[in-house]
Amino acid sequence: MAHTSTAANTAADTSVNTVEFGPATGLSCRECGALYDLGPIFACTECFGPLEVAYDFGEVRREDIASGPANIWRYRSLLPVPAGVAAKPNLQPGWTKLVKADRLAAELGLRSLHVKDDSGNPTHSFKDRVVAIALEAARNFGFHTLSCSSTGNLAGAVGAAAARAGLDSCVFIPADLEPAKVTMAAVYGGRLVAIDGNYDEVNRFCSELIGDELGEKWGFVNVNLRPFYAEGSKTLAYEIAEQLGWRLPDQIVIPVASGSQLTKIDKGFRELIKLGLVEERPYRIFGAQAEGCSPVSQAFKAGQDVVQPVRPDTIAKSLAIGNPADGPYVLDIARRTGGAVEDVNDQEVVEAIRLLARTEGVFAETAGGVTVGVLRKLVREGRLDPDAETVVLNTGDGLKTLDAVAEHARPAAVIRPSLDAFRAAFAN
Amino acid sequence: MAHTSTAANTAADTSVNTVEFGPATGLSCRECGALYDLGPIFACTECFGPLEVAYDFGEVRREDIASGPANIWRYRSLLPVPAGVAAKPNLQPGWTKLVKADRLAAELGLRSLHVKDDSGNPTHSFKDRVVAIALEAARNFGFHTLSCSSTGNLAGAVGAAAARAGLDSCVFIPADLEPAKVTMAAVYGGRLVAIDGNYDEVNRFCSELIGDELGEKWGFVNVNLRPFYAEGSKTLAYEIAEQLGWRLPDQIVIPVASGSQLTKIDKGFRELIKLGLVEERPYRIFGAQAEGCSPVSQAFKAGQDVVQPVRPDTIAKSLAIGNPADGPYVLDIARRTGGAVEDVNDQEVVEAIRLLARTEGVFAETAGGVTVGVLRKLVREGRLDPDAETVVLNTGDGLKTLDAVAEHARPAAVIRPSLDAFRAAFAN
Repeated sequence: MAHTSTAANTAADTSVNTVEFGPATGLSCRECGALYDLGPIFACTECFGPLEVAYDFGEVRREDIASGPANIWRYRSLLPVPAGVAAKPNLQPGWTKLVKADRLAAELGLRSLHVKDDSGNPTHSFKDRVVAIALEAARNFGFHTLSCSSTGNLAGAVGAAAARAGLDSCVFIPADLEPAKVTMAAVYGGRLVAIDGNYDEVNRFCSELIGDELGEKWGFVNVNLRPFYAEGSKTLAYEIAEQLGWRLPDQIVIPVASGSQLTKIDKGFRELIKLGLVEERPYRIFGAQAEGCSPVSQAFKAGQDVVQPVRPDTIAKSLAIGNPADGPYVLDIARRTGGAVEDVNDQEVVEAIRLLARTEGVFAETAGGVTVGVLRKLVREGRLDPDAETVVLNTGDGLKTLDAVAEHARPAAVIRPSLDAFRAAFAN
Repeated sequence: MAHTSTAANTAADTSVNTVEFGPATGLSCRECGALYDLGPIFACTECFGPLEVAYDFGEVRREDIASGPANIWRYRSLLPVPAGVAAKPNLQPGWTKLVKADRLAAELGLRSLHVKDDSGNPTHSFKDRVVAIALEAARNFGFHTLSCSSTGNLAGAVGAAAARAGLDSCVFIPADLEPAKVTMAAVYGGRLVAIDGNYDEVNRFCSELIGDELGEKWGFVNVNLRPFYAEGSKTLAYEIAEQLGWRLPDQIVIPVASGSQLTKIDKGFRELIKLGLVEERPYRIFGAQAEGCSPVSQAFKAGQDVVQPVRPDTIAKSLAIGNPADGPYVLDIARRTGGAVEDVNDQEVVEAIRLLARTEGVFAETAGGVTVGVLRKLVREGRLDPDAETVVLNTGDGLKTLDAVAEHARPAAVIRPSLDAFRAAFAN
């Protein structure tokens, strides 16, 4: 394989047996196409563009996938992981439910709607998917510590994955995080470090640490392992297609934080078409943001190609990335597929969480309120085809963002334990 | 089918097509064997003993089960549900992970250990299994409202299941419940009623309501639908056996609240043997309680057949039933199989939650701390065979009982975002 010299943004000197990365053949720059050997690197030394995994898939058959395990490893032949990954100690995320949402569809006026509910993952968010791929890369590179900067879901996913694998972990969070997220991040016994600063400062600190000997042999899942990590989101695309009966949906609503998940779902759909696993057909991808952190939505509406960073202010904290790395790619994909990027305000987020819970018994975190809220808005405005097969993502669990709905989810009455009291409280 | 007159403890006059209950043929008294037609009844009119579902299974084959859906409906031919249940709107619980717990096994000194992790259910506790069966019974009996008394897990499971099915729900809780449990119980939009009283008073009020016209056409999952509801726990036995490769474990540790779950797992194992789905072999069943609510454990240790009610005082609130209905059956089973009933104190519960999280990346609720704590105690005392295949249950999710571990799960340090500060905090 042709390749340039090893990118400079890593201190690790690793020799890698590519067999351990399954069908992955190298890393390629998404901007200039420069090729690199597989390694713990994330930016192109030529143009500073982001790197992504390149593959040589060979033949991949539906039957082989269908006979695989009920987790993301059924797609191991499409991921940068060793063939024996399913037997290794990891959290086995994925194969979450694609909920046929007939009652929500009826309320919204849609013919066919499914909710891809990733709250069913081991630590109850889609982050288990991406961390599982990063974990394999960390093992392959001989790293002993799994690390990340996080405001919540990722911290728990990294802590749990490292614990199961027997690796050390060191997770960095802003010091003012909600107590519930702190508890979950720390309970797995790894090192949890609170940084006296905001999330951006935590991020910058992590980048410093990667360049220092202190961070040697550390895999930062969302920094130096990011090309591998990001591939985990492709499994959402694979699962949705397989669960629909090896068919792509007509339209799909996906949350946008960094934008990585949306771009990888598009990549996954295109791979399935290319490999002949699904019939080629047009699909439309819609990105969803919270109004209080909607730089990509603003750029989409303004017809711009660049994304202006914003200072986040929204209850949808897991989507609160003011400077989304993959924002321009999201704009490309929404425009290319005939989709859009839209946003809803915090009140609409809460209404959507309650709507989804009331109609389908799915209790989503605020990010799920954002996608369902945007779905509702798009239908109301006639921008989604009500007769087309639609999928909306819920990427996390309501138990992690209880405060968002607490004031709306209270007892209807407090009564004495007597029939008279019950009758008095609820007589029509 | 021979049967006595309809039991008196229901106001409902229902005519039931037994086809809708699959292989179930009637209800039988666990004490005197009296037979009843299938109906929303729960106590024998002859001797006041509890009723359970009786079946005529016919032939059941492994292949048919294995080709079923990845939820409890793969076992529909062993449950009182219609053949088409999988296509109905319900939460599709079950088929949760049987986690190969090699790191925990190594710490405890066991050769082979699995954790059956029921936090993976839709509302993150095993209650989704039992409620799913009760929901089908409620539909069959033409009930319009799903109800229960609950201190937490059951309230969420009933609210969610009713929402998905499009039934009304009315859930009764003690008014002093933790805010997080209240939020989850109310978010699905059903009616949540707080009772100014303790759990026993809530229960008594529900029994009154069943006899009143106010409760007509209401299915109280854990009262008038209890015989159906309880059958849901058999699916834990089926899944464990199938996931072990159609083999029974040698020893299993199960939490004891009412005791129903333990008795139904034993029933499930015996059914599998009788149907030839697994090889007959001895298995030992161990019950686990929290010291602050250990009436069954106390009776076991004292060699008694009766269970003296206690006033619960433990952090394991989901197991805090001071007067467990199935206590005597639990004693029978533990003694018959060569097992035991044991308890651990609240500190041991917390230690066990942290041990499981640290070794396997599984964050259990307090009930899981009870089972893992009892497992550890039994191994230390030489009462479990360390070379035998062992399974331990985690029946709920740590996110619901965060307070139990919050003081032990905190950041190791709070530092400024600089390498010097990191070095100063963590230099060895």
